[in-house]
Amino acid sequence: MSVYLHDIPLPEAQQRFREALQSAGLDGVLGQETISLGKSALGRTLAGPIWAKLSSPHYHAAAMDGFAVTASDTNGASQSAPLSLEYVAQAVYVDTGDVLPLDKNAVIPIEVTEALDAQEQLHSDPRQPHAIRIREAVTPWQHVRPMGEDMVATELVLPEGHTLRPVDLGAIAAAGHSHVTVARKPKVAVLPTGSELVSIGETVKPGDIIEFNSLILATQVEEWGGEARQFPITPDDEAEIKAQVLAAAQEHDLILLNAGSSAGAEDFSARIVEQLGELLVHGVAVRPGHPVILGMLQIEERQVPIIGVPGYPVSAALTGEIFVEPLLARWLGRQPREKVTVEAQLTRKLNSPGGDDDYVRVAVGYVGERLLAAPLSRGAGVISSLVRADGLALMPRGSQGASAGEKVNVQLYREPQELERTIFAIGSHDIVLDLLAQFLAPQARRLVSANVGSIGGLVALRRGVAHLAGSHLLDPESGEYNLKYIQEYLPEEAINVLGLVNRQQGLLLRSGNPKNIMGLEDLKRPDVRYINRQRGAGTRMLLDHHLNLMGIAPDELHGYNREEYTHLSVAAAIASGRADCGLGIAAAAQALQLDFIPLFEERYDLILPRQFHDDPLLAPLLDCLHSARLRKAIEDMPGYNTAPLGELIAEVN
Amino acid sequence: MSVYLHDIPLPEAQQRFREALQSAGLDGVLGQETISLGKSALGRTLAGPIWAKLSSPHYHAAAMDGFAVTASDTNGASQSAPLSLEYVAQAVYVDTGDVLPLDKNAVIPIEVTEALDAQEQLHSDPRQPHAIRIREAVTPWQHVRPMGEDMVATELVLPEGHTLRPVDLGAIAAAGHSHVTVARKPKVAVLPTGSELVSIGETVKPGDIIEFNSLILATQVEEWGGEARQFPITPDDEAEIKAQVLAAAQEHDLILLNAGSSAGAEDFSARIVEQLGELLVHGVAVRPGHPVILGMLQIEERQVPIIGVPGYPVSAALTGEIFVEPLLARWLGRQPREKVTVEAQLTRKLNSPGGDDDYVRVAVGYVGERLLAAPLSRGAGVISSLVRADGLALMPRGSQGASAGEKVNVQLYREPQELERTIFAIGSHDIVLDLLAQFLAPQARRLVSANVGSIGGLVALRRGVAHLAGSHLLDPESGEYNLKYIQEYLPEEAINVLGLVNRQQGLLLRSGNPKNIMGLEDLKRPDVRYINRQRGAGTRMLLDHHLNLMGIAPDELHGYNREEYTHLSVAAAIASGRADCGLGIAAAAQALQLDFIPLFEERYDLILPRQFHDDPLLAPLLDCLHSARLRKAIEDMPGYNTAPLGELIAEVN
Repeated sequence: MSVYLHDIPLPEAQQRFREALQSAGLDGVLGQETISLGKSALGRTLAGPIWAKLSSPHYHAAAMDGFAVTASDTNGASQSAPLSLEYVAQAVYVDTGDVLPLDKNAVIPIEVTEALDAQEQLHSDPRQPHAIRIREAVTPWQHVRPMGEDMVATELVLPEGHTLRPVDLGAIAAAGHSHVTVARKPKVAVLPTGSELVSIGETVKPGDIIEFNSLILATQVEEWGGEARQFPITPDDEAEIKAQVLAAAQEHDLILLNAGSSAGAEDFSARIVEQLGELLVHGVAVRPGHPVILGMLQIEERQVPIIGVPGYPVSAALTGEIFVEPLLARWLGRQPREKVTVEAQLTRKLNSPGGDDDYVRVAVGYVGERLLAAPLSRGAGVISSLVRADGLALMPRGSQGASAGEKVNVQLYREPQELERTIFAIGSHDIVLDLLAQFLAPQARRLVSANVGSIGGLVALRRGVAHLAGSHLLDPESGEYNLKYIQEYLPEEAINVLGLVNRQQGLLLRSGNPKNIMGLEDLKRPDVRYINRQRGAGTRMLLDHHLNLMGIAPDELHGYNREEYTHLSVAAAIASGRADCGLGIAAAAQALQLDFIPLFEERYDLILPRQFHDDPLLAPLLDCLHSARLRKAIEDMPGYNTAPLGELIAEVN
Repeated sequence: MSVYLHDIPLPEAQQRFREALQSAGLDGVLGQETISLGKSALGRTLAGPIWAKLSSPHYHAAAMDGFAVTASDTNGASQSAPLSLEYVAQAVYVDTGDVLPLDKNAVIPIEVTEALDAQEQLHSDPRQPHAIRIREAVTPWQHVRPMGEDMVATELVLPEGHTLRPVDLGAIAAAGHSHVTVARKPKVAVLPTGSELVSIGETVKPGDIIEFNSLILATQVEEWGGEARQFPITPDDEAEIKAQVLAAAQEHDLILLNAGSSAGAEDFSARIVEQLGELLVHGVAVRPGHPVILGMLQIEERQVPIIGVPGYPVSAALTGEIFVEPLLARWLGRQPREKVTVEAQLTRKLNSPGGDDDYVRVAVGYVGERLLAAPLSRGAGVISSLVRADGLALMPRGSQGASAGEKVNVQLYREPQELERTIFAIGSHDIVLDLLAQFLAPQARRLVSANVGSIGGLVALRRGVAHLAGSHLLDPESGEYNLKYIQEYLPEEAINVLGLVNRQQGLLLRSGNPKNIMGLEDLKRPDVRYINRQRGAGTRMLLDHHLNLMGIAPDELHGYNREEYTHLSVAAAIASGRADCGLGIAAAAQALQLDFIPLFEERYDLILPRQFHDDPLLAPLLDCLHSARLRKAIEDMPGYNTAPLGELIAEVN
């Protein structure tokens, strides 16, 4: 039974942890090491300031190829009254970088001198003349890089806590150092636990969970400057887990104990922390991630902090960001990473539990002038939401959420300029959109698609929260697609309708068709469980149209009210046995090895407000519609006809 | 003799190089390799899209600990009419993550059930009851994570060209992959050449140049996803360099041939490229960095691009950014890095040669509401200017520069939010400012100081381009410091004068005082070469004041017109023999092991416009003035008295 009854606010949890670290003497740099100044110094953090040991240049250096002279010897030289300087008493040849002779204080570039022989005639070797002739006086220190021009010995080169970049390594070398003293890398043990876990690459059976949290946590740690060791999976056995924790504590500065998602897993962690030291926090009021455990182990004379990381992957990754990164930063003596924060308008209402700091993953991009944040799936198990997220919108403790259009602060995972490359496609889903996304990626465009059905897409365009919408809305009266609905939903807006594909819709059935379903008529049978698409989906409207033609009432179908949001989800429902059939596209059937009975061919268009047609943001997408490679890739999938691809089907309004 | 006579514009140079790469078939991903999904996959770039092989979850999973039921069995249950479900026919205990039994379609959390024994009494083991009692009906799929909730098999997980982050590795594992196919790392050879070069750590003598460009280039390459090998230093010997290039070409995809800064070094490079292949570009109209060479070697059947990198370190580092990074990005199939660009106002006039794209290193920060760009040293040998730079202001080819206050585009090296932590100190220089910078670094403040002398600092405050100014301006009439000058230069502005230190000023002399200089009187001697500070420097004014008192005219000093901008530069001039003595502080003498004759003690203040006094930006600095650690660190230096440290000396206006 999970015990997250004691959730405390995040700042209080951080405070307790910080105090425990302080009293253990673990709140600053863990230690330092001196390493030689080479490639491995890149990215390390200075444990002390670097003061220049040597000036740079460490001597007066010629800054041009030419003749070193004493400036006063050149006084009076002019075009009309050239002056000869005797080689080498008055003028010495120097290359760029050469030491300036002690009695000289300027360099005359060779290009503006004339080499003379003993007869004051022009000489053949300009670098070994008898004398040189000049036609201009020079000032002292002209074309000389004086000692210390770059850095003077004793100057501060870089402060403590600085993380070394390539140019820093150069400057440290220039300042006369061959070694640097850096904070030693914190050693972090990552312990995955859970009897349900299997390693990456093992065959899975139902109930198995692929263990990848330790990989996320270990790579986070390394990215943040630590050294991570992934331990093998330990099953849910308190004694075994305790033994692993003890072993890890011997050699590591921090233990990340990743509980399984199964019941009681966090209780094991909590009990083990209590037995081996002090349980500081059990449950933090953040979502996702609240069952976090913070503790301090007492292993003989050493104190070792431990973080009990929740089992769900989104919770695990955010626990890394919230608790592990700042700790590693302190241990390295560097500033914690600070994410760029932008203000963006929510594309839809967000409900939030008032008691928690709620981190909502969002896709962020500009539609016209407005910066929008589209909330992604909130499930703590939905790792793809973190992969797709451009940032986190924090709904602070005490707020109940925010309404559509409201501005929220988003901590970005990307550089701000990358947001200007996001194309929002909201509407009906088709696998061709995934293909398009793949084709656009190399052209610096991210196609973010949200699947809300065709009508939902038109509504999104009306609300100005999308660049385009996929749509396949049949008008039963005219047999035409989309145009009537555009008039209805977007009566004011100038719209281009671009053809994408004709595609087959049909019945998706379990492999081998065990219930012997032959057509829509069979959906009335009491033993047939249907799985429907959501209200507003073109596929649902297609079904309704044909049910109507056949005189079948919706409530004659078992499961008419069970809704999925994509073709693939419908296919997944059938593949898993949750339903016997659903209406969808052939590609989805093929993807999950389902049977397919083709019923109708329909046109699937892209609905594009004309204001975006010439937007450079969308240019690569429009070009892509004329690419032979895309056409080929679509035709390689079953049930598609690319005849309309790239065609301007209609201009509405 | 250098041959940068053929400088061509940057876009043309890039175009020629690109075309040569294209015709050599080297304009895209060099190759791919399949690696196991582990820590080493972090930061690698996908060579193809990742489609989900497995749905996630790959089965219907209980999302809570509780009882799996068939939703229809719960119809009618309510508070007043509880319902019993028989264990295990109607209700099966499941832990979070467990497989939902095939005939069940919902989970009731254990907390809202009552366990019953055979007599319908409450049962002792809530997970093994005879039956459970519920008081609420449930809907189908409640508390179930349906198969594919996260990802459905066949969905696009990540597009080609994506660079892998920790969460991506998790998602790829969840999608059923144990390996990833990534672009192979380009192999880059870095060849330092030059007879004047010595390796890091070797003892240097005048004329030696410490070879660190190869370290900068190699770490740049690794940071950008390549694999770099640093070759040993090759002296300026055409045959030897050619042999090294040939050897490197066998095993590498790109050669960076770093010419020495000495004369003819680039000619070697150019000739070798011509002998071994095609010289595409010799000289690019960019500053710093124009003697860049671009070529394509033909080694048996292979073509190997080569970049001749200029010898000056700033040129070398910028050549990496301009030519190497975009090439590596193409070879990895990723987008080139794009720096965030901001618009900032120049703090001073910038002259620029009209013929080149001129990259000016700037410090960037906010003073009040204005974002300012302060140009740093422009010397191609001044690597510290790159270390200190917050970004590059590009003065495009064709522009002649920009005036003070003009807005310029700056490509940032830092995150934009870091700019909000920059404190600009413009004025007189003192080593205590370096100490302050070091103390402020751990508190997320960067103290950027520009040394323009005390008067220059007051002018900078008047122009609103600095937060504070170090100043030590003696009023000869009152014997007071700074106040009169503040009234004169900042008559309108409310100013706080904060004490920093009292410091000794005196004569800096070559070690052992070979010219037997005993005081200011000796500066008139014809054999004594003085080195002065620039006009407006408090130290110069102090000299003028005392010369005046002593009845010595400035032109009686040899070298009165030779100016340096900092105490340390004056010390360096003396240490190197360029001058015999100068006026400065004891710390500068000690730094360079000079002799020192103390003459006067003066007060050195921080001049702070009151508007910044309560600015959170400056709070850590003001706190720091009261730190015992800072006081101790200052007192450890000779010639300082910390009595005024942190004192509010005066409020002016």
